[in-house]
Amino acid sequence: MGRLRIYEDDNFFIEKEESEIPWLKIFTKELYKELGDMPKELRKQLFEIFDIIEDEMKKYYNPAKINMASFGNMLPHVHLHVMARFEKDSYFPNPMWDEKLREADLDLADEEEFYKRVVEALKQFSLG
Amino acid sequence: MGRLRIYEDDNFFIEKEESEIPWLKIFTKELYKELGDMPKELRKQLFEIFDIIEDEMKKYYNPAKINMASFGNMLPHVHLHVMARFEKDSYFPNPMWDEKLREADLDLADEEEFYKRVVEALKQFSLG
Repeated sequence: MGRLRIYEDDNFFIEKEESEIPWLKIFTKELYKELGDMPKELRKQLFEIFDIIEDEMKKYYNPAKINMASFGNMLPHVHLHVMARFEKDSYFPNPMWDEKLREADLDLADEEEFYKRVVEALKQFSLG
Repeated sequence: MGRLRIYEDDNFFIEKEESEIPWLKIFTKELYKELGDMPKELRKQLFEIFDIIEDEMKKYYNPAKINMASFGNMLPHVHLHVMARFEKDSYFPNPMWDEKLREADLDLADEEEFYKRVVEALKQFSLG
């Protein structure tokens, strides 16, 4: 088991999902049921964090596509899924929750280095 | 077949997905592959439209949860899915792409009236 939480600040924390693909989840610390229940400024920050993760995923993994989702049906606590998708992952082009189409054939770069870059980019952003 | 496109302005159009649940898709007119490829101002507008739809869905249908997703793996054209979820829909609490859990038992208010309200709210917003 690797560490689940890769980043934390006053308002958010970021966890990785155990998966064959790079998959991060951005949580608010305060509990909100819906995105629209969040204060506007905080929601702006949530999407800025999404932006940074998307950008780092694109640069580091060169994925076929980035996927993003917000469900929270089981536990109504706002969190954004950010996933890097590849043509040879098990589900592509289906969403990760849909039917599996094949055995994955992925040779991905080191994830610890990716988390390091994400954390670095988030720190740069919060200092900027 | 009802009409698919319920709204259109200079930058966006909104289509309904044929589904047992209220489900709208917000498309950009210009083609962008990733959310991060959009000009910042346009992306802000995209999430403002999401906000308005979420808000109207909550008021009109009183759903258990709103779900949101952006995939575009098949056709890389930015679009946001906005779905109203109910405890008695076929998949709850699973995402709509996941395993079906039951036969839906839904008695939803008239969808044409809902679209009317969404369009009205979007027009108010663009005038405001």
